[in-house]
Amino acid sequence: MSFKEETAARTAECESIISEFLPRREDFPYMERVIEAMNYSVLAGGKRLRPMFILETCRMYGGRVELAAPFMAALEMIHTYSLVHDDLPAMDNDLYRRGMLTTHARFGEGMAVLAGDGLLNLAYETAALAFDRARTPEETKAVIRALKILSRNAGISGMVGGQCADLTAEKHPERTDRETLLFIHRNKTSALIDSGFAIGAILAGAPEEDIKSLDKIAENTGVAFQIQDDILDVTGDSAVLGKQVGSDEKDGKVTWVTMYGLEKAAEDVKALTEEALALFDGLSASNGFLRDLILSLVNRNS
Amino acid sequence: MSFKEETAARTAECESIISEFLPRREDFPYMERVIEAMNYSVLAGGKRLRPMFILETCRMYGGRVELAAPFMAALEMIHTYSLVHDDLPAMDNDLYRRGMLTTHARFGEGMAVLAGDGLLNLAYETAALAFDRARTPEETKAVIRALKILSRNAGISGMVGGQCADLTAEKHPERTDRETLLFIHRNKTSALIDSGFAIGAILAGAPEEDIKSLDKIAENTGVAFQIQDDILDVTGDSAVLGKQVGSDEKDGKVTWVTMYGLEKAAEDVKALTEEALALFDGLSASNGFLRDLILSLVNRNS
Repeated sequence: MSFKEETAARTAECESIISEFLPRREDFPYMERVIEAMNYSVLAGGKRLRPMFILETCRMYGGRVELAAPFMAALEMIHTYSLVHDDLPAMDNDLYRRGMLTTHARFGEGMAVLAGDGLLNLAYETAALAFDRARTPEETKAVIRALKILSRNAGISGMVGGQCADLTAEKHPERTDRETLLFIHRNKTSALIDSGFAIGAILAGAPEEDIKSLDKIAENTGVAFQIQDDILDVTGDSAVLGKQVGSDEKDGKVTWVTMYGLEKAAEDVKALTEEALALFDGLSASNGFLRDLILSLVNRNS
Repeated sequence: MSFKEETAARTAECESIISEFLPRREDFPYMERVIEAMNYSVLAGGKRLRPMFILETCRMYGGRVELAAPFMAALEMIHTYSLVHDDLPAMDNDLYRRGMLTTHARFGEGMAVLAGDGLLNLAYETAALAFDRARTPEETKAVIRALKILSRNAGISGMVGGQCADLTAEKHPERTDRETLLFIHRNKTSALIDSGFAIGAILAGAPEEDIKSLDKIAENTGVAFQIQDDILDVTGDSAVLGKQVGSDEKDGKVTWVTMYGLEKAAEDVKALTEEALALFDGLSASNGFLRDLILSLVNRNS
């Protein structure tokens, strides 16, 4: 199986697990519309990278997928709610995502706000189901720790913090420096990647040293991914990317490339990736597919 | 001390507990604005009824306030996020609440969406702090159960479900019947009251039978509160209410009063209240202040 086929198979596996935790319309009378909007948003595609990270780190350390499954669905719900709210007219005002109408474009703005809120609450309700699947006090402790990481990395100490810093940076490009960009990437992007790596490893009882390394691997992967994004905005092929090339410059946005130039940006991606892979190779367990997956994210050309 | 003074003292106590869990601006660089918006929203006033319910049921059963405190803050954060998102132009489009600018009116729409999301994530992050305060396996189990109730009652099986049914009912008054109104009140209003009663009682180790009664007391209190709201919309004094009388009729809204008339509505409030108080008096513990508080909510004239 090629890496591409392997990824597709894992995506399908993640989708099947996530589907088990989605609300069924018939169970929720009087609110068909919000249930439809929530499911539409979750099922709108994507590679399911974040739940895949949980699945792969969980397996890598010999964990039980049954215990990790609620967190896989929860993390995808959190990622999805953030996209639904990000697309709102008050935020990025996007009408299309992955070739489909965004949630507010399809269901109206009020329903999109509620669908996002519904997904975020459901994420925590779903994650808490893992308590019923814990078989030992150690597993219960691991679920508590995973729940704390899930909420911390999604909120103001993680993704929401990064989104806010990003909104502020767009308004004040003159105040945006290297530290600001790093803060945005680490919180807006690395934080949920870290939830994936750390939660899977913790639920599988991985050694503390490995969990620490995975945090750093997640951080580097997220930052490298975003710098690569900035590079592709300049050098990419619009047809392949599916969006206009050069949009950052047009928007007057400060990026790693406007700050350091293409050459240095590419060097930084390389250095971040090499450090991440060296750490990955030093872990006490191995997972070739996950290693390739990390590499494919930072080396992508679309 | 009069009931009014006692309530004010309890409100101050709740506010002091909640404040301990609010984020401090200096701890969150690069996102001062969202932290400011979150704190502004939480500190915008109100009686802190929901955390007060936790505090009073917890005390009634001899529980530890230290264990309940994170849930008090979490429940108020959930209530607050729902107000922030409800006030958005895409929802109720309100510029003022309790005489202060609403969050989006003061900080902008994008920041209000993010502040609501930040509060909702922080609610779960805060509730999870209770695990560190649990001293016995029984307390840990109680925290797990409380966390499940918190998320279930806030989401599509509770408040978000009620909000969605309400949005739908406003669009389709012709389809709105008794069952729809009951569904909306039970989910939009009773659910978070129930979180207050049930979480406080569970964390204090109350008997199962009492918890069941408290669920029903919360349900009746929420429904009676909303019917009383509909009554006051017709009979109330605009100056006392702080809002225009007769707005429901003007908006073509279906309410308990438009459906059954004032007399029957008042009878229903009385019956719901009497049933709730009879259940309250049958509990294995007593709390005179909480009894008066429930009564004051359904008998209010403003």
